[in-house]
Amino acid sequence: MAGSRWAYVRNFELPDTLLPNTFILLRLDGHSFHRFADDHAFVKPNDLRALELMDPRSLGSDARVPRCGSLHMGSPTSTASCFESLRSCIIDDNRKSHLCLCSLFTSTYVMLWPQCFPDTPLRYAPSFDARIVLYPGAQEVRDYFSWRQADTHVNNLYNTAFWALVQQGGQTTKEAHETLRGTVSSQKHEILFSRFGINYNDLPRQFRKGSTIVKDKLPIVKTDDDEGEADIKIKADSVPNENDIDEAGVPAREKASSEKRRARAATQQRLLHCDIIADGFWKLRPVSVRRMRSLACVL
Amino acid sequence: MAGSRWAYVRNFELPDTLLPNTFILLRLDGHSFHRFADDHAFVKPNDLRALELMDPRSLGSDARVPRCGSLHMGSPTSTASCFESLRSCIIDDNRKSHLCLCSLFTSTYVMLWPQCFPDTPLRYAPSFDARIVLYPGAQEVRDYFSWRQADTHVNNLYNTAFWALVQQGGQTTKEAHETLRGTVSSQKHEILFSRFGINYNDLPRQFRKGSTIVKDKLPIVKTDDDEGEADIKIKADSVPNENDIDEAGVPAREKASSEKRRARAATQQRLLHCDIIADGFWKLRPVSVRRMRSLACVL
Amino acid sequence: MAGSRWAYVRNFELPDTLLPNTFILLRLDGHSFHRFADDHAFVKPNDLRALELMDPRSLGSDARVPRCGSLHMGSPTSTASCFESLRSCIIDDNRKSHLCLCSLFTSTYVMLWPQCFPDTPLRYAPSFDARIVLYPGAQEVRDYFSWRQADTHVNNLYNTAFWALVQQGGQTTKEAHETLRGTVSSQKHEILFSRFGINYNDLPRQFRKGSTIVKDKLPIVKTDDDEGEADIKIKADSVPNENDIDEAGVPAREKASSEKRRARAATQQRLLHCDIIADGFWKLRPVSVRRMRSLACVL
Amino acid sequence: MAGSRWAYVRNFELPDTLLPNTFILLRLDGHSFHRFADDHAFVKPNDLRALELMDPRSLGSDARVPRCGSLHMGSPTSTASCFESLRSCIIDDNRKSHLCLCSLFTSTYVMLWPQCFPDTPLRYAPSFDARIVLYPGAQEVRDYFSWRQADTHVNNLYNTAFWALVQQGGQTTKEAHETLRGTVSSQKHEILFSRFGINYNDLPRQFRKGSTIVKDKLPIVKTDDDEGEADIKIKADSVPNENDIDEAGVPAREKASSEKRRARAATQQRLLHCDIIADGFWKLRPVSVRRMRSLACVL
Repeated sequence: MAGSRWAYVRNFELPDTLLPNTFILLRLDGHSFHRFADDHAFVKPNDLRALELMDPRSLGSDARVPRCGSLHMGSPTSTASCFESLRSCIIDDNRKSHLCLCSLFTSTYVMLWPQCFPDTPLRYAPSFDARIVLYPGAQEVRDYFSWRQADTHVNNLYNTAFWALVQQGGQTTKEAHETLRGTVSSQKHEILFSRFGINYNDLPRQFRKGSTIVKDKLPIVKTDDDEGEADIKIKADSVPNENDIDEAGVPAREKASSEKRRARAATQQRLLHCDIIADGFWKLRPVSVRRMRSLACVL
Repeated sequence: MAGSRWAYVRNFELPDTLLPNTFILLRLDGHSFHRFADDHAFVKPNDLRALELMDPRSLGSDARVPRCGSLHMGSPTSTASCFESLRSCIIDDNRKSHLCLCSLFTSTYVMLWPQCFPDTPLRYAPSFDARIVLYPGAQEVRDYFSWRQADTHVNNLYNTAFWALVQQGGQTTKEAHETLRGTVSSQKHEILFSRFGINYNDLPRQFRKGSTIVKDKLPIVKTDDDEGEADIKIKADSVPNENDIDEAGVPAREKASSEKRRARAATQQRLLHCDIIADGFWKLRPVSVRRMRSLACVL
Repeated sequence: MAGSRWAYVRNFELPDTLLPNTFILLRLDGHSFHRFADDHAFVKPNDLRALELMDPRSLGSDARVPRCGSLHMGSPTSTASCFESLRSCIIDDNRKSHLCLCSLFTSTYVMLWPQCFPDTPLRYAPSFDARIVLYPGAQEVRDYFSWRQADTHVNNLYNTAFWALVQQGGQTTKEAHETLRGTVSSQKHEILFSRFGINYNDLPRQFRKGSTIVKDKLPIVKTDDDEGEADIKIKADSVPNENDIDEAGVPAREKASSEKRRARAATQQRLLHCDIIADGFWKLRPVSVRRMRSLACVL
Repeated sequence: MAGSRWAYVRNFELPDTLLPNTFILLRLDGHSFHRFADDHAFVKPNDLRALELMDPRSLGSDARVPRCGSLHMGSPTSTASCFESLRSCIIDDNRKSHLCLCSLFTSTYVMLWPQCFPDTPLRYAPSFDARIVLYPGAQEVRDYFSWRQADTHVNNLYNTAFWALVQQGGQTTKEAHETLRGTVSSQKHEILFSRFGINYNDLPRQFRKGSTIVKDKLPIVKTDDDEGEADIKIKADSVPNENDIDEAGVPAREKASSEKRRARAATQQRLLHCDIIADGFWKLRPVSVRRMRSLACVL
């Protein structure tokens, strides 16, 4: 071959095989997204267009998106220290460098931008960094998502209070940070309620809980009370609404749902804004202990 | 902190520090780009719009693009086995996961698509995978680029002959592969010339040599004979044209150029289609042995 | 500090953190042990002195040896292609480079040499290489040990037949390899029995099953029928002998043993030569799903 | 194969290829050697038997020891905080797990113990941990060894003063640490000289400079003035003594030595206690920029 004299340079491409039979989690993070959010006039504390743009379902038609995994999206708020554009998902492959989900996510983000921001041209190319984390067991996976949702909650509560102080209270950003310094959760709730009449728990669940995408066969139906919050909901009369799970813990679902109905339901990708820390969510969707022995054999 | 109970999951984020004082090369590769090229009707064997879209200078305003490195872009041809959408560059950082140049490249690709393909809407999101390769010395870096350019040449010669047989010779793709099976370089030249009147060496340098982006302070000027081939050229009267270097080896440049003139020239990003295998290119732009001791000390 | 000018060289010591919450397996392998066995006149096919020298219990007083793991030692036979001096164990630590069990094993091997080979001075320093393998779940750990024991069996059957042909049958080593080429297990049994009157299944269990070290609280007692085979056996009247487990599968032990007796038994390190492929061994000693969360938190 | 059902477990043995064309440095460190030195009554501050036991030449007959590298051994002093049993060397191989030099070193250490400590039986098995560090260039390699020698010097000066205060000055170890707290180098020199009549610079070079093993073809000869310090010295009449290099910088050697004489000299392994920080040592023995292209090609 013409290039054989130089082909030795390929020997420097060291293998980056991932440990088999683990849960692969890819965590994306927007690069300099504080500035990006400012430069594109994101609404604060939460920009619905930006949230919609990161809707994980937009990746759904691609085979690389996890078939039975869970995705969780933190809120793309826009304050100084905690703007995050995170999305985590479990995928499977066995070479780190072949995981181009970060590239796919980026490319989808830019491609769908004009739909979500019809009046705001993209001023420059956004980018995301990607970390791959391996989790050996189901418990760690669940704990990871709990950690992300707890983080989403903490950040959103802070941001909501912060921007209320700035936008409605007339404080400077510096003053608002001062006001909130050292406050605990209940104090932020109190500030929101007493000064601005905002009951934090009445805010859209999407802001408070983030977004979680699931692919499962649970029967679903639109419910009235969720109108406008998430487009797809679990059918109320066959299984408890995921909202109820949020407050009530584990639902009585398993008994209720007939085997037959479940079998008929097609696998569907759904966007939820429910609690994923309590047991309810995970009882419905156990993280299967993947023993991909056959797969591992041909690695 | 609210999430402290789950924060242990961060311990699974293992460090991915890169060995200091090496040359970091990032190699991008289009994912399923044969299909992508077909689905978007790329002209064969070379689509100028696709080449323009990957012009590395589009990334140039971003600080993450290598300040003094070299980028080389293979030809994004579109035949079955060798379509590549490669771009290599040397950057410096010390955590693998923080290298989001792949994401930046992807996002730029999608953002600039409408300019380069005004009549072809993007049908779906393209993606790229990224490999990071470390090279300990300057020789390996040079050999890497030689290997890429040799590869570009071999692929382009094959593709040019292949598509001539199909588009002008009326062969099926299967027949064309048969015709070319086992032929050496000179035979492909002969097929092109005798059957289709194509002198391969007259084809645009861009197709035969690929594109190389450089950032340097060499004085530049438009030259007549290169019109339409590359937009920027080294000033003919002060230094040998890079074309000459291609054929003549090392230029007499060093003696000719006065220190003063060089000092005045601002660093510029330029797109070249010259030979990067012979000594000329590298004599002008020695790969500095980076001894980033001060940097390394604070890693 | 005097050396601060050069201290940057420490930055090249990249972290080699092991993924938390996995089972760490260290596999040792003798370096050039064919030659070493020849140079020190190991008895073939099995040298009891060499087996004794590798008795994992010799490491037992050191805290680094796994507290509740299992060690398995393949047979140190001495034929050309399959001499192995393997020993696997599960340990826990979180930096690869801190695992000096290989060094400890080596040093113990040399220190105990004069006891096991009183008439054979060590002619040169032996060495072992060490591979660290991480297994995410209990099933993989069990399968690893099954794989090792199956390998021990295959190798020992071959070696036993090979050396019978050489030592008793008068064949050259080349002829013996020829005789055995392509034979399946039953044919090797037949050769041993018909030509040399050897019933393979009557050979010491130690050769056929290898050695496994366990640390557990199962009550133990010497039994008559095992005299000379393994020094320590499970108490026959309280639990099924491990030999029985070998043939009979899962013992009725769980029901039999009273909680009290188990509680009183101290943790002991024992050397077994029993089957570790069937369920029996593992039912008695389940691989605990280690959720070292507290440990992981301070990594 | 019998074990094929379980053979998948081999897939968990991830590759640990080392980056080619780098300098591989293996750094050994005694495990709990403070205690080991106490338990075996090492003489303080420097035990000549322990130093002799670690003489890198004992490994010399093994092919795995670097052919043209340099080894440096720090002093195995025995005070609380800085006892080190370090030995660094440059070797070449391309799989981390195949580097069993640590095991070989350990095994040699134990095997030679009775020769160096005829009256002190080994009470338990010592062990060493091993770190592999890759250095991309010659400068880093030289700086690494400079760092080690500077460290040896600092530790030895402290230990010499410390043990003089304890052994001759009658201080407790706690008092001695108090006395030395915060002192700079010149103050330790002064303490040694004024209180104990010790001129630090008159101490054996071996303690002050550590030991360096070299393999080269420089002509050698015993010299009178070095009697008892290092057994082998560079021939005084053909090249400057390495001692002179220590003080005088670069010797006039290159001119003096005839090409012929050098060619005749056989490669020899020598133990030096000279300065390896100044230019002299390295001028005589440049770290060759290893461009192992042919090697790299068959990795």
